[in-house]
Formats: sequence, C-alpha cells, structure tokens
Amino acid sequence: MFITFEGGEGSGKSTAIKKLEQALINAGKKVLITREPGGTPISEQIREVILRKENTSMDPWTEAYLYAASRRQHVIEKIKPALEKGIIVISDRYLDSSLAYQGGARGLGIKEVLTLNHFAIDGLFPDLTIFFDLPPEEGLSRISHNSNREVNRLDVERMAFHEKVRAAFYELKTLYPERIHMIDASLTPDEVFAEIEKLIPDLLRK
Amino acid sequence: MFITFEGGEGSGKSTAIKKLEQALINAGKKVLITREPGGTPISEQIREVILRKENTSMDPWTEAYLYAASRRQHVIEKIKPALEKGIIVISDRYLDSSLAYQGGARGLGIKEVLTLNHFAIDGLFPDLTIFFDLPPEEGLSRISHNSNREVNRLDVERMAFHEKVRAAFYELKTLYPERIHMIDASLTPDEVFAEIEKLIPDLLRK
Repeated sequence: MFITFEGGEGSGKSTAIKKLEQALINAGKKVLITREPGGTPISEQIREVILRKENTSMDPWTEAYLYAASRRQHVIEKIKPALEKGIIVISDRYLDSSLAYQGGARGLGIKEVLTLNHFAIDGLFPDLTIFFDLPPEEGLSRISHNSNREVNRLDVERMAFHEKVRAAFYELKTLYPERIHMIDASLTPDEVFAEIEKLIPDLLRK
Repeated sequence: MFITFEGGEGSGKSTAIKKLEQALINAGKKVLITREPGGTPISEQIREVILRKENTSMDPWTEAYLYAASRRQHVIEKIKPALEKGIIVISDRYLDSSLAYQGGARGLGIKEVLTLNHFAIDGLFPDLTIFFDLPPEEGLSRISHNSNREVNRLDVERMAFHEKVRAAFYELKTLYPERIHMIDASLTPDEVFAEIEKLIPDLLRK
C-alpha cells in the first residue's frame, strides 16, 4: 500500500502524516514515512542542486528532469523495496507535485511532465493520494500569522503561483478521480484526520 | 552549424577538436567549443553528482535523467543562444553518448533513452556527428602504455563495456546514416583531420 500526501506549506499535511503513522502503528502495521525530493543520499544531493539559491538560471525542464532523477532513485532504492516487504509507504509529495508544479503552474504541460516521469515511477502510481486543499490566501495568512510579518510583493506573486498549482490539482482530480482525494485543509486537524480514517478503514483496523 | 564529437578516452577526439577549432578560426569563423556533461554552472553541479565516488547505488535511469537534466541546461543556456548568433558550436559528447552508454551498454534501450531525452534536446539534433571508432583493446593498450602499468581485471571489464558502447554506435550509425560519420581513430592525427576536412569543406573555406 502506497499513500502520497500533497499540498502546500501550512496546509497541515505534516501533522496529518504523523497522526496517520501513529494510528497505523497502533493497528500493528509496519510503516515507512518518506518525502520528496530526497529520501535517499543521492536524492538529497539532487535536491541540493534544485534548491541552491545561485541557480536562478535553471530552466523549468532541467528542474523537471532533476525531480524525476531524484524520484527514480527514491522509488528504486527505498519505496519499492519497502512495498515488496509488505510495509505501508507514505510519501510527503510524489509524482503529482511534478505534474502540478512543473506541468501546471510552470506551464510545461501535465501530459508532458507525466511522459517525462515514465521511467522515474517505473509503473508505480500511488494507491491513494490525499491532496490538502486550501485557498492560497488562507495559506498565506497562516504563514504571515506564524512569522508575524506583513504580506509583501513576493507573497502576492507566490499566491498567484499557488493558485495555478491548485488549479492543476483540480485538473489532476478529474484525470485520476479514483486515486486522488481532496481534503478541505481549512478544517481542524481532528476533522482532517477523521476524513483520512474514512478513506482507509481496513488499514486502521487491528 | 552544430557538430558533435563522440568516442572514448584515448581516441584522439580532443586533439581533433583543437585542430578543427584552429582551422575554423583561420577560415574566419566564430566557434564555441563546449563539452558534456557540463558546460554551464548548473550542468557542472549535476556532473559532480553523477561522478561522485560514493554514489555507487545510483540507478542507471537516475543517471540517464541526470545527463538529460544537464543536457537541457546546456542546450538552453549555451548551445542554442550561440547557434542563434551564427556561431559554429562543437560539443565534445552530446545526445549519442547517452544513447550509446545508457541506452546500449547499460541496457536501457536506445529508443527509450531517446524518448527520455525528448525535452532535453528541445528538437536540436547535431548537423554532423563524428564518431572516433577504435577497437577497445587498442584504446586499452594506449591507456596502459601512457600510464606504464599492467592491464588488470577492471580494465578487462571496462573493455567488455566499451565493446558494447562501440556496438551501440554502430547501431546509431544505421539509425542516423546521414548525420553520423565514423572515423578510423587508429589513423594518425593528420590522417584523422584530413577525413574531417572532407566532411565540411565549405566551412573551412575563407
């Protein structure tokens, strides 16, 4: 069983992953929590190249290839071996992040980025993907509230970008209606977790 | 005009590139010499990840994605802008290296690695590719002669690998008969260069 979580910063994704991990352990299951980009030493090195501040001239396709390289290593070295041992794998971000960010928001095309990822995922689509849906202005207000600062021009640009990411996830939901589940991330952590429990009742049973 | 050189270490490729550069400059042409992987700061960072000794667990597809990422950046940031200015670009290795090494010798499939590189080359195939063909045992003998040491087990393994690379280039020649030219790299540097001159007489004329 392979579950992926998608959604922006401040959407409550990390809290939900921790709660789910604990609930699965309580139900006697073996769980592996991992994240993208990263998850293996080679993936972490690739992540460093992607995130390095000086690399402002990085082309969007270069970025998409680097995410795919990191994903391939993550799938082969960590995710697939765990799944083969019957471990439940939960990844914080996976394929859909590339489809939404590079494919949708950066305009490379969802179909094109899926094609590019063909050899990266090696046939491995998640069994379940939970998308934490939050209006960008609410995400922004959570961030500025936490950091106690004024909203600036960059925040507004970022908001327009996140609006595109969100629109791409809505499109992905129409492409993969069975696999992708949207969760209203403006609910409380307990309400969010109750939604997740409804999606996988069998897994959470002892 | 975009010319690529392919061939192993000790094949005389670098010497020929230098000679060609000088001949083109003498003919009043503007020339840019570059190389793969690398050629831009971002590509160099990716090259470091590919070549790092500790990364022994790197999956062949991860490697293929990293070469494609590096190539994309190289094409967009360096090769295409130069070509648009009418500069003759000569690259030491390009697409065919991925097709031969990852596609052929590592067994990923030439067609599959070409598909993976679709967005990396952005439609840019070389106008001319010169492959320096040398029997692997001769390459090996040149290397051991230069380093003044005995041939060891690793050399023999490497030779089997280079035999596969060479077979892949022969296959590429049948796929792209117009573009790829084989040069017998066991000839002297002057004889090799005379062959190259025959391929591009118009370029070398003042």
